Amino acid sequence: MKKFINTVDTLLDESLLGFSKAHTDIIQLNAQPHFVKRINPPKPGKVALISGGGSGHEPLHIGFVGSGMLDAACPGQIFTSPTPDQMLAAAQAVESGGGVLFIVKNYAGDVMNFEMASEMLDCPNATVLVNDDVSLPKTHSMGRRGVAGTLIVEKIVGAAAENGADLSTCKALGDRVNNATASMGVALSSCTVPALGKPTFEISDTEMEMGVGIHGERGRETVELTSATEIVEHLCSIIDDELKPKKDQSVLLHINGFGATPLMELYLVYDLAVQFWQKRGVTICRSLVGNYTTSLDMAGCSVTLSLLDEELLKLWDAPVHTAALHLG
Amino acid sequence: MKKFINTVDTLLDESLLGFSKAHTDIIQLNAQPHFVKRINPPKPGKVALISGGGSGHEPLHIGFVGSGMLDAACPGQIFTSPTPDQMLAAAQAVESGGGVLFIVKNYAGDVMNFEMASEMLDCPNATVLVNDDVSLPKTHSMGRRGVAGTLIVEKIVGAAAENGADLSTCKALGDRVNNATASMGVALSSCTVPALGKPTFEISDTEMEMGVGIHGERGRETVELTSATEIVEHLCSIIDDELKPKKDQSVLLHINGFGATPLMELYLVYDLAVQFWQKRGVTICRSLVGNYTTSLDMAGCSVTLSLLDEELLKLWDAPVHTAALHLG
Repeated sequence: MKKFINTVDTLLDESLLGFSKAHTDIIQLNAQPHFVKRINPPKPGKVALISGGGSGHEPLHIGFVGSGMLDAACPGQIFTSPTPDQMLAAAQAVESGGGVLFIVKNYAGDVMNFEMASEMLDCPNATVLVNDDVSLPKTHSMGRRGVAGTLIVEKIVGAAAENGADLSTCKALGDRVNNATASMGVALSSCTVPALGKPTFEISDTEMEMGVGIHGERGRETVELTSATEIVEHLCSIIDDELKPKKDQSVLLHINGFGATPLMELYLVYDLAVQFWQKRGVTICRSLVGNYTTSLDMAGCSVTLSLLDEELLKLWDAPVHTAALHLG
Repeated sequence: MKKFINTVDTLLDESLLGFSKAHTDIIQLNAQPHFVKRINPPKPGKVALISGGGSGHEPLHIGFVGSGMLDAACPGQIFTSPTPDQMLAAAQAVESGGGVLFIVKNYAGDVMNFEMASEMLDCPNATVLVNDDVSLPKTHSMGRRGVAGTLIVEKIVGAAAENGADLSTCKALGDRVNNATASMGVALSSCTVPALGKPTFEISDTEMEMGVGIHGERGRETVELTSATEIVEHLCSIIDDELKPKKDQSVLLHINGFGATPLMELYLVYDLAVQFWQKRGVTICRSLVGNYTTSLDMAGCSVTLSLLDEELLKLWDAPVHTAALHLG
């Protein structure tokens, strides 16, 4: 395993320390239990938005804490859910009278622990469950996974909360964005989880994993590596079948890198995805290209499409000031 | 070779198309010859800042075109200098009466071609040569290479030019920032140049390349992989010996990823570099952590330190609006 680390056990702590020192103008780290909260306190009465999940997906979620997005994020160990006491402590630290909205990616551990935190929390709270990964059927026993679409939910609901929307409005908005969002990913390599010390799976030089999540697991199927055009057509077709955007529908197109894929390739993928939907008369009015929801050092990427209306577009464009996303 | 591409020959064109479609609010792509220019025309009389170099280092330089930074960038083929006609066309497209300042990384091809463009250009112009890589001795036959410090020169001079500084002031400022900046990099893997189709060099699972540039070449020496603390101490020591920051000196600390190293590790490296200089009483007042000057899919990172005074700090903090850097 080749990584810049001291020990597997201290990696997360040391990394969080670095993150907190690099962004003292935006966030503050609570050491025990671990959570990151925004440095500018939210307005009294503002709904507090909290997300979290296993680490290894940086900048998700800690990089999205700040004005206009999350109030706090709870980082678990790598690919491991944070604990209910982290979530509870984070909620108590940022709750400002408007209640708490948890934004949770659909994984069994995350769901269970956020549910426990929700029950323990002594204030109005609700949860938005993100399950944008359309590589799995809707009927999958565990449900679909939450992947790169999560940041779109966080950004849009973050803007609404900052503008004073109340808890039920934020919850309904989050569900609406989630339902209007679909993602599909492909990997060219495994990632190496530090505690394991070797790649999670073996894959040959001519194969790729189609329909992957963000935890270094195998995809829906292992297939022959083909041209970027064919790969992107496949990813986009599955998303298109799911969301069925109509002609002239406005959309946000997000190309997300899993960590080890150069920006040059991500922009090429973006171009091909634009061509796919332009042929269908869909209007790509906003975009985001880069490594936002990563899977350690995995080579690969995902395509995410979100259907936008005027309200969602305005909320997407609202100012946001976080370590990893800065608009306006 | 596992990459999201169609053909090696069309990779750059397709990627630039995607980049230009994703950032229509900031930049515009000129197809023939290739250059990227800012969409908001500079004020009349403003010094035009132009950089460029081989592709494969994204977001450098195209991601730094926009208000407050570069007026144009010329992308060459991967790891290959752009041609003088690209530079000339870019200069003619953005020159606004204040002359042209070329910001050039010190590589033989880049230097030669920018010199030719400078001679062909029919307006006042000057060049800042960036050579911040302290892994090579000052006396090296080709001189030291320009690496991640380049973006610091581009940002600071960009702010001065936007504020109305004239050509000689911008040139002197660029030289001053370059002289106050030092970088040192380490790689855990080679990168794969698409035209070659395989890693540039072989490296064992227990070795690293110390003192690497950004073109996938071997480093100053191949050494045993060790702890992050030891690696960072080594990188920082060489920089510290070069710049000799005094106690209470204000500095900008930039940790740059080469492409395939997770943000989690880069923040850990940042924390260790902070500790190194804090022990020496140096004041780290600004920082930048992320993949900014990459080497395709190389795993590795570099540490860059820039000595700041009040003027440089103010220019670093000035608003900038580009695809890859957004402040204020």
